[in-house]
Amino acid sequence: MSKNLTKREEDYSKWYNELVVKADLAENSGVRGCMVIKPYGYAIWEKMQAELDRMFKETGHSNAYFPLFVPKSMFEAEEKNAEGFAKECAVVTHYRLKADETQKGKLIVDPQAKLEEELVVRPTSEAIIWSTYKNWIQSYRDLPLLINQWANVVRWEMRTRLFLRTAEFLWQEGHTAHATREEAIAETEQMMQVYADFVENFMAIPVIKGVKTPNERFAGAEETYCIEALMQDGKALQAGTSHFLGQNFAQAFDVKFANKEGKQDYVWGTSWGVSTRLMGALVMTHSDDNGLVLPPNLAPIQVVIVPIYKSEEELAAISTVAHEITAALRKLRLSVKFDDRTTQKPGFKFAEWELKGVPVRMAIGPKDLEQGTVELARRDTLTKEVVRREGVEAYLVDLMETIQQSLYQKAFSYRDSHITQVDNFDEFKTILETKGGFLAAHWDGTPETEEKIKELTKATIRCIPLDQVKEEGKCVFSGAPSTGRVLFAKAY
Amino acid sequence: MSKNLTKREEDYSKWYNELVVKADLAENSGVRGCMVIKPYGYAIWEKMQAELDRMFKETGHSNAYFPLFVPKSMFEAEEKNAEGFAKECAVVTHYRLKADETQKGKLIVDPQAKLEEELVVRPTSEAIIWSTYKNWIQSYRDLPLLINQWANVVRWEMRTRLFLRTAEFLWQEGHTAHATREEAIAETEQMMQVYADFVENFMAIPVIKGVKTPNERFAGAEETYCIEALMQDGKALQAGTSHFLGQNFAQAFDVKFANKEGKQDYVWGTSWGVSTRLMGALVMTHSDDNGLVLPPNLAPIQVVIVPIYKSEEELAAISTVAHEITAALRKLRLSVKFDDRTTQKPGFKFAEWELKGVPVRMAIGPKDLEQGTVELARRDTLTKEVVRREGVEAYLVDLMETIQQSLYQKAFSYRDSHITQVDNFDEFKTILETKGGFLAAHWDGTPETEEKIKELTKATIRCIPLDQVKEEGKCVFSGAPSTGRVLFAKAY
Repeated sequence: MSKNLTKREEDYSKWYNELVVKADLAENSGVRGCMVIKPYGYAIWEKMQAELDRMFKETGHSNAYFPLFVPKSMFEAEEKNAEGFAKECAVVTHYRLKADETQKGKLIVDPQAKLEEELVVRPTSEAIIWSTYKNWIQSYRDLPLLINQWANVVRWEMRTRLFLRTAEFLWQEGHTAHATREEAIAETEQMMQVYADFVENFMAIPVIKGVKTPNERFAGAEETYCIEALMQDGKALQAGTSHFLGQNFAQAFDVKFANKEGKQDYVWGTSWGVSTRLMGALVMTHSDDNGLVLPPNLAPIQVVIVPIYKSEEELAAISTVAHEITAALRKLRLSVKFDDRTTQKPGFKFAEWELKGVPVRMAIGPKDLEQGTVELARRDTLTKEVVRREGVEAYLVDLMETIQQSLYQKAFSYRDSHITQVDNFDEFKTILETKGGFLAAHWDGTPETEEKIKELTKATIRCIPLDQVKEEGKCVFSGAPSTGRVLFAKAY
Repeated sequence: MSKNLTKREEDYSKWYNELVVKADLAENSGVRGCMVIKPYGYAIWEKMQAELDRMFKETGHSNAYFPLFVPKSMFEAEEKNAEGFAKECAVVTHYRLKADETQKGKLIVDPQAKLEEELVVRPTSEAIIWSTYKNWIQSYRDLPLLINQWANVVRWEMRTRLFLRTAEFLWQEGHTAHATREEAIAETEQMMQVYADFVENFMAIPVIKGVKTPNERFAGAEETYCIEALMQDGKALQAGTSHFLGQNFAQAFDVKFANKEGKQDYVWGTSWGVSTRLMGALVMTHSDDNGLVLPPNLAPIQVVIVPIYKSEEELAAISTVAHEITAALRKLRLSVKFDDRTTQKPGFKFAEWELKGVPVRMAIGPKDLEQGTVELARRDTLTKEVVRREGVEAYLVDLMETIQQSLYQKAFSYRDSHITQVDNFDEFKTILETKGGFLAAHWDGTPETEEKIKELTKATIRCIPLDQVKEEGKCVFSGAPSTGRVLFAKAY
């Protein structure tokens, strides 16, 4: 199999696009800005979903499903939210096509079938969900209301990239309602923590937890918590957000409850989401010039067995062993594929599974049969070793854990060495252009400075880290006083 | 808890609508024809999804995801399919809203943001998927292609009912491509069988397998296989369909492959789907005037434990036992809820869990503690028994199986006694109006007769059963010769 993958050093962006397509994760569709998630890519997404879903349920949330469409008047209700999403939303105006009488076989929009009120395809579901919560919440006994939805959403992005920015994407969106401000903030923080745990432990991607500046907040939120990851090209990627909505949506949709004292009050809200964007983060954190590198937790195939043989008899003998090992590994809940295709040579298979990021490749040849060994190749380190066949199952279980940890450590070291303290704007620009990564810099707290820096350098404030150290300093741009560093970066 | 559920005999349709809402399955939303699936209803749907997904994977299918939107020109490509769905599709014409300058806080469609080509919100995904398959299939080695998608679809129905007919619904749609006609037909039949197994064994609903008449076929199919169920009011409900598409979509989208001899040929297709409509079938097959009756396989809560107590001490003692039983049942993979709310009386709790269809209720009171017993109440039969606490866990595991079987048997007996052979049109009309159910009647095979009967009686041909017996006869309407009976019914 010829990979012809562009090298990361040559053109990181091209490498990414090619890899996503060649490794069968996704491809562009015939619909502007919309992607097709291919079976191999979708299998990874399913693993993410399963784990996140488990974590949401463990923290007391239930799934539900709300309509795809939001009537325009409902969409308008929370003004900031509407303003934030109006610029890029798909609008349904008609409910029928009819035959074009001037061209056989063609259809046109039926002008008789115009909707009285336009419908917005949900860019996010706060409006439709809060309009529903109004009927679900009467008293403090109905709270907290802890609901999650797995859904597709649409934002009409002008420049799209597979997984990272697409007009339609898949996500989950949690929407909760609480009796007090404190409870809602605790929920917002808890879900940020759930995301951080998931991304770090399951995806092996280290993240920085923080809050967004007012400029970068979710439209309609009082506070946006986020987790920020760093890609191999030194650009940041927002991997998940959790919003404290205050009483904004409760007020917009008139969602009140009777508290324990019988007094009416607006409820407090949160919303939080992660999307198929995480697939992009996964690719850009771990993969290399040979293809995908998948953490064992997310790999649809964790071990691939490739037979090395010259004759039918050799293949038969190897197959017997391979089937035994496969069965034993499956009992240990490893997912294994025995690649016994006779139409492809081992070299082709090696390259293919390398491209697809299978964590461990096991090769078995006639010599291995004789000596009771197998050859294991690690995808992440590209190292090989010959091990005893006896006990290889337990060894592989451990190896999965080792690889998972090792990927995290590698990404962590990279990230750690790419947080640079900068104390003046020249340094800021130089480091940004040469090394990239996060720049820890003092900022005067004004949106004007934030925007000016963005204009001049394309760097934005990724977050005010939760573990920010109090430190007197001067804004890297304006020189005005500041009490702690924030993290700037160019971002996806 | 006051249920005030309309009786089935009084008004079956009203009973259904009330039950769906009161049992917290779903409700109408603020969006015309679209429903909100509430957490309890969604939990049932998740169980259906998990089992179906397992069955699809076991038969070699993978999941993927294709775009929500279909450009108009792509939608038009398969003419019959386009014609079938054009009348009821949501059309996106614009991609932006802007501030209404005449009214503060209001938005209007931005005329500057008109799409060059309108987008249809998928009513089904053959068009978008076959336009993709064109690039995925070159040779017989790429076949069969066995893909499933879990998605939302939109059909602009004018008269909607919760779960049974909604503008947006959730479903899965399988789309497969094959090298030969025989293989594609075998796949179509296999998936009909998978659906039948699922609906009978998992949902405890007996079905009749058959094929649709040309009139009732899926738009663009050569043959539509279906499974038909019978509801308690004597109306039929199509529970799943599996379509043999011939080469129609391959031709429309130019999907060719090189066969083993190197010759180019169009591929053969199938598609098959079940939807949230199954939730309606579930409710209407098993439930009664007291509320939902859920088969144990689909019940989000299989056993609910209700403590009967007068003092705090009694509650504490009962709780200890209840927690022990809960833990033991969970180990056996039963899902249990201990309803220890102190805000509600046992009577209220009994009625609530009855309404929600929990298969078994366990009550524990002070006397039970003394005597080492518990009281079990079966939801399906409304019978109670006192059993020894020791060994109750194993007893419950068996009881779940008993209830599952018993629900199926009950539904089967009802269905079986509601298939009536009729041999003239008067009989046809009388039985249809008095008894309902399936009418096994001779039909002359013409669409004209089929339509005339529908016009006169509202009954349609549900299917030509696969186990149809060859039998000379005369069409119940026209008197023309026929070689076997088909099944008529009024249907949802």
